[in-house]
Amino acid sequence: MTAKIAVLAGDGIGPEVVEQGLKVLEKTAQKFNLSLEFTPARVGGAAIDQEGTALPAATLQICQNSDAVFFGSVGGPQWEKLPPEQQPERAALLPLRQTFNLYANLRPAILFKQLKNASPLRADIIGEGFDLLILRELTSGIYFGQPKGRADDKAFDTLSYRVPEIVRIAKVAFAAARKRRKKVTSIDKANVLTTSVMWREVVVEVAKDYPDVALEHMYIDNAAMQLIKNPRQFDVVLCDNMFGDILSDEASMLTGSIGMLPSASLSDGNFGLYEPSGGSAPDIAGQNIANPIAQILSAALLCKYSLGRPDAHDTIFSAVNQVLDENYRTRDIMSAGCQEVSTSQMGELICGKI
Amino acid sequence: MTAKIAVLAGDGIGPEVVEQGLKVLEKTAQKFNLSLEFTPARVGGAAIDQEGTALPAATLQICQNSDAVFFGSVGGPQWEKLPPEQQPERAALLPLRQTFNLYANLRPAILFKQLKNASPLRADIIGEGFDLLILRELTSGIYFGQPKGRADDKAFDTLSYRVPEIVRIAKVAFAAARKRRKKVTSIDKANVLTTSVMWREVVVEVAKDYPDVALEHMYIDNAAMQLIKNPRQFDVVLCDNMFGDILSDEASMLTGSIGMLPSASLSDGNFGLYEPSGGSAPDIAGQNIANPIAQILSAALLCKYSLGRPDAHDTIFSAVNQVLDENYRTRDIMSAGCQEVSTSQMGELICGKI
Ligand SMILES: CC(C)[C@H](C(=O)O)[C@@H](O)C(=O)O
Ligand SMILES: CC(C)[C@H](C(=O)O)[C@@H](O)C(=O)O
Repeated sequence: MTAKIAVLAGDGIGPEVVEQGLKVLEKTAQKFNLSLEFTPARVGGAAIDQEGTALPAATLQICQNSDAVFFGSVGGPQWEKLPPEQQPERAALLPLRQTFNLYANLRPAILFKQLKNASPLRADIIGEGFDLLILRELTSGIYFGQPKGRADDKAFDTLSYRVPEIVRIAKVAFAAARKRRKKVTSIDKANVLTTSVMWREVVVEVAKDYPDVALEHMYIDNAAMQLIKNPRQFDVVLCDNMFGDILSDEASMLTGSIGMLPSASLSDGNFGLYEPSGGSAPDIAGQNIANPIAQILSAALLCKYSLGRPDAHDTIFSAVNQVLDENYRTRDIMSAGCQEVSTSQMGELICGKI
Repeated sequence: MTAKIAVLAGDGIGPEVVEQGLKVLEKTAQKFNLSLEFTPARVGGAAIDQEGTALPAATLQICQNSDAVFFGSVGGPQWEKLPPEQQPERAALLPLRQTFNLYANLRPAILFKQLKNASPLRADIIGEGFDLLILRELTSGIYFGQPKGRADDKAFDTLSYRVPEIVRIAKVAFAAARKRRKKVTSIDKANVLTTSVMWREVVVEVAKDYPDVALEHMYIDNAAMQLIKNPRQFDVVLCDNMFGDILSDEASMLTGSIGMLPSASLSDGNFGLYEPSGGSAPDIAGQNIANPIAQILSAALLCKYSLGRPDAHDTIFSAVNQVLDENYRTRDIMSAGCQEVSTSQMGELICGKI
């Protein structure tokens, strides 16, 4: 059976890194005898310029006919003057998340041992590196809660959650932890927010079905501290939409290289959207110097979750590790004694190990 | 004229560190010929145990009759089983903030050059240390917005701001920046939140009255990264209530010693509440090992803002610096080649320099 993949390269470094991701996917398909069909579609600023909207109907249609979306990144200074609701990030990403009910956002924050020097943290805090998984609820909370608006001199947003929305993301978190180091840290602000009090109650209930997984609760303000103090204490970090946005960016910075971090946005079936955690990096776009590894690891996640091929995932992951072991680095992760390579060279090198 | 100071020592390390803060205030009063009158009052878990409520009416009355509140810290494991709205932190702090309209929370995050080794950040990122001021809106936003509640299987909180609430905190931020390095970074999530769009508009308006101060806007997720990547880029960081809660804790951790960080919560007049940024630290309470410097620097802020004596503030600040220069350290900031001292010894040493 052929798996259909919508390719939404977007803006900035998106097209360059997506190209490398596709090379890797093709090489992986050969090796594992997978049949993949790629359909490119416009998104973000590029779509605004050509069709007046960040997420054209045709693009949405292509995604709807696909098994997975391979997403680059969107946005850039030329669209920053647009009203907030028309800007590429918001106008492309939020409707995609909502339309496809992509409620579970997986953001692994892994400090590769080869890149320990790149982390802003002191060596004794990092130790042998860390590997945590932020699990962010992606289709509810203050991002989508109603009412939201302005009246007279007042503006308001609504943070709301329903029990089943918390149950399903919590289940994903516990199931993931079961396959990892068996610990879930649930983030909330239960000393202030009513939603957090309910969040905590529901998570405690769900945890009963996973007696082999340890559960702890942590306030968001404390979590923002603990991530820096000792990132190795975390395994799976379960967050609502807004807290997950903040903590995943913070965690990614601790790895020293947002260019290394993939993400997967999943729903109940096999459909998923895969994109690097970083943005479109307009300052380095078009120079063939961006790090394609986040995009390539996103391709690995696509194999695992949408194609049901963890073996293909592991092969890509290990190819990346081998290339890092051989001391090849893009500029963002360059350090003394290593060999600097371009975006496309990095893509080639990784393909060579598959 | 005698200045009346309500002393709410609270729980955990609160009483121990407040005692040192009072010693320093008394010594400072002698030196500068200030007349201070201290009135102790119960708050937090101690008040719950004795009077069944975290903020007894008598305590509120004492605060109302005072010019400033010198606050220790509240909370501890023995009260964690209480319903959220009765827990010491929330039930004491939130009503105090609201009753006294303490809308401007100043949280300086200073990495003292003597303590560079204590920071979790790499030496090259820290450089000669950093000194930023988080200005957090403290009486509105999602902490107090209505409606807030539960219905059926749903829970909700409201994030709301009115224009004048943003104007007044923005003015405090720009006025503070004017006396510092003349830069305000305003934090929001204007790509998602309606309140943030208005926040940004209002801050831009207020900025027009401070043409000598540079203004930049930063999304909260990016700010959580930038604080770690390069804390030295910030001068004054202007935040709403929730974002300020998160960023101030993150920033405090970067200084490596939450035991060093004071805070002031101010309104329009001279009245203010002064407390360490850290919590009640029940694990080390009663051992005479807690760091009293945050409390002592909070006393310095009290002199500056409620007594109108910046000279007294500077004297206390410089006393702390001298004691650090002489390599005296409490356990939390201890490092090789230094002399470890107790809570009360640290208080004595600082008094000795005033
Ligand atoms: C662009 C923005 C709407 C988005 C978010 O806040 O979810 C981004 O920050 C992310 O984390 O994917
Ligand atoms: C205890 C809690 C309600 C409080 C807050 O969130 O404001 C605390 O975290 C703080 O920062 O003062």
